[in-house]
Amino acid sequence: MSSQRIVVVGADATGMSAASRAKRRAPEIQVEAYDLGRYVSYGACGIPYAVSGEVGRVEDLVVISPDRFREERGIEVFTRHLVERIVPAEKKILVRDLAAGRVKERAYDKLVFSTGAEPITPKGIDPGLEEVFFIRNLEDAQRLKSFLAERKPGRAVIVGAGYIGLEMAESLAKAGLRVQVTVRGERVLSSAEEEISSALAGELKRQGVELVTGAVPKATERPARGGVRLELMDGRELTADLLLVGAGVRPRSELAEEAGLKLGVKGAVAVDRLQRTSDPDIFSGGDCAEAYHRLLGRNTYVPLALGANRQGRVIGDNLVGGKSEFPGILATTVTKVFDLTAARTGLSLREAREEGLEAVKVVTKAPSRASYYPGSSPITTCLIAEKGTGRPLGAQMVGLDGVAKRIDIWGTALSAGLSLEEIGDLDLAYAPPYSPVWDPVLVTAGVALKKIS
Amino acid sequence: MSSQRIVVVGADATGMSAASRAKRRAPEIQVEAYDLGRYVSYGACGIPYAVSGEVGRVEDLVVISPDRFREERGIEVFTRHLVERIVPAEKKILVRDLAAGRVKERAYDKLVFSTGAEPITPKGIDPGLEEVFFIRNLEDAQRLKSFLAERKPGRAVIVGAGYIGLEMAESLAKAGLRVQVTVRGERVLSSAEEEISSALAGELKRQGVELVTGAVPKATERPARGGVRLELMDGRELTADLLLVGAGVRPRSELAEEAGLKLGVKGAVAVDRLQRTSDPDIFSGGDCAEAYHRLLGRNTYVPLALGANRQGRVIGDNLVGGKSEFPGILATTVTKVFDLTAARTGLSLREAREEGLEAVKVVTKAPSRASYYPGSSPITTCLIAEKGTGRPLGAQMVGLDGVAKRIDIWGTALSAGLSLEEIGDLDLAYAPPYSPVWDPVLVTAGVALKKIS
Repeated sequence: MSSQRIVVVGADATGMSAASRAKRRAPEIQVEAYDLGRYVSYGACGIPYAVSGEVGRVEDLVVISPDRFREERGIEVFTRHLVERIVPAEKKILVRDLAAGRVKERAYDKLVFSTGAEPITPKGIDPGLEEVFFIRNLEDAQRLKSFLAERKPGRAVIVGAGYIGLEMAESLAKAGLRVQVTVRGERVLSSAEEEISSALAGELKRQGVELVTGAVPKATERPARGGVRLELMDGRELTADLLLVGAGVRPRSELAEEAGLKLGVKGAVAVDRLQRTSDPDIFSGGDCAEAYHRLLGRNTYVPLALGANRQGRVIGDNLVGGKSEFPGILATTVTKVFDLTAARTGLSLREAREEGLEAVKVVTKAPSRASYYPGSSPITTCLIAEKGTGRPLGAQMVGLDGVAKRIDIWGTALSAGLSLEEIGDLDLAYAPPYSPVWDPVLVTAGVALKKIS
Repeated sequence: MSSQRIVVVGADATGMSAASRAKRRAPEIQVEAYDLGRYVSYGACGIPYAVSGEVGRVEDLVVISPDRFREERGIEVFTRHLVERIVPAEKKILVRDLAAGRVKERAYDKLVFSTGAEPITPKGIDPGLEEVFFIRNLEDAQRLKSFLAERKPGRAVIVGAGYIGLEMAESLAKAGLRVQVTVRGERVLSSAEEEISSALAGELKRQGVELVTGAVPKATERPARGGVRLELMDGRELTADLLLVGAGVRPRSELAEEAGLKLGVKGAVAVDRLQRTSDPDIFSGGDCAEAYHRLLGRNTYVPLALGANRQGRVIGDNLVGGKSEFPGILATTVTKVFDLTAARTGLSLREAREEGLEAVKVVTKAPSRASYYPGSSPITTCLIAEKGTGRPLGAQMVGLDGVAKRIDIWGTALSAGLSLEEIGDLDLAYAPPYSPVWDPVLVTAGVALKKIS
């Protein structure tokens, strides 16, 4: 049997996990990965901390270098390579070596499409301005860090207050900048429950970050005396030395579409639980693809790192004859915004109602530690549950202390299908430095049980 | 219907929770609680932090005063009252008012026996010496704190390295004492897996606490020049200014036994899942009683605060006609020993094997946060699972960071009966400040799956 060739288009976490897993399972296969960027296999979620200086160098975020992929795992990684076309009918790709300028053809037996996501550029913002930044990859982080070092900007405007916008607000504030964050509506992290948004807005204010609400960009320009000016639809103008865009991402799926692959939710590549696309020889996963949601029981688009890595492993298995299934996501996230931590798992109230579920929200406030122990502070929990049955559907938490891994108690309970009563009966760890006797999770389950049933 | 009278013997967390719940459910009932001590309803687990000074005053550990129980909850609490006899045949108790010296009789319709536990005094130690301390209640804490303030002791010997011994080692070291901890065998926290014990022993050493192994007490005495001397069976002698005993506890069940109640595991009061004793009108729970263990499917003796509080609520329901069942414990615990946190849930390897299960242990080491993020440090996990089936039976963790609530992911998974595969598939929260992409829980489940199946 001649050795099978696997081509990875886009060397993101999914692609490189797939490559590594497949090669480990079947060392005789040939695997080559192509990526437009200079870096592969890095912790993109660490960029805010590399920019702020909490993590020493941007390059410290790299987990495995292309050389190590080659030497230790037998995987050929080609950076600065742009895949221009995938031709499924001929099972080949056309790829341009950006350094050499040459285009070559490569045949594949199986292909992994893992091109990730790209930041959305809101209307009215000129992405080509030198003072406009996106947080897409390590090159972006390096460019921003150089800009900070060389230009010593004093003021930043951040467009958008999702995870990236909020984390970069902290990052730039820690780097010494005065920061304004703009949102189109009234709330930061508008996908979260209001109680979470308002806690985060309070924290921004406390930390000296100005929130500009109702801000719809109209135009960006470079004033004569330098910097960047953001004009808003309502006539307001914000000026700063740099403008950072954190307005969400969209799947980078154009190439897949051109190749005739079916797209799904929000234009992401459609996949089944085995991460197969509509072409039997092409797999996809990560931020360019749909992800199966456990509670919804169908695909959705929530690009997150753990899911992307896990999908890569599933693809790796299935590339070499396995039948692994992606278990699905709960859309569990956690983010640090200055001293606050906000986390969620499962559905929000709006999402639950959009599913046609009769859902209610129960809000509790309970201390993170024994009330007499130093550092104890309230955790606000929003629990979303189905009326009548009381089935928990989602949980969100915000607080100064003890939020990050507590959300995982809810996530585990949701995955296991525990009832509120069973959650209220959990034997959770207690010691004064870590929890009150009745952990906030137990308190919330108890309050919800009473209110819902 | 004349109002029912409920008598609570021992105003611990179980007794006062039962009283509060019953009175709330049926406000017409009369509830009176008797306790030997001066304080009721306090966070005994906070004593080490009150002694060290991290919590301001010992009295800050009191949650609800007797006056507030009377005024806000309509419950009469009699402190400094010694119940001398329970006479089930006549449904009455004999109780001595220690202040007044009088004995009175009180009739009851239902009785709650909640006398808690008492520290074990190892052979060879004279509990009457002024320099010998136990950590039983707030009075003990006050006596110790006064002793520290007035005598300014420089050296302490702690006998025993269970939770209390270890927490008090930190507490006394923080109060400025040089501390020696003695253990009979070789290990601290000998109920834990070896990997946990050795990490804790390392931390004691790092913090300047001396561990004295193979130390079996023979005698205590007061040398002429003051202080206390502990003579060991092998001839070694330890001298200090105070000696603290943390050698475990036993149920305070003598009075129950005298009243003819059936005792069970380790001499604890035998109870069913409704917390009923062998007498239909007497309930029991908390540290004087057995506790139902979820995984073992039978009663055991593991005195812990959450279970005690929960049993109190169950009793409260059932006192007034309810049929609440205690859901059981997993023996989940967490303890802080200087900078380390050690936690466990479910069975240890020894416990599993004693149950006749063919159990194995899998040990992993995984970072608490993204490896590049400041504060990331390894968490050691010992997972106990059943050979063949791979069913997880227990987990223990130790580390500097992120241990306390992570153990609850395992506890929730154990309660829900999740398989290792399902645990490995959990969608846990990831952000660099809180977790690597693959949380230590996921890493452990993955490693265990490979090793066991």
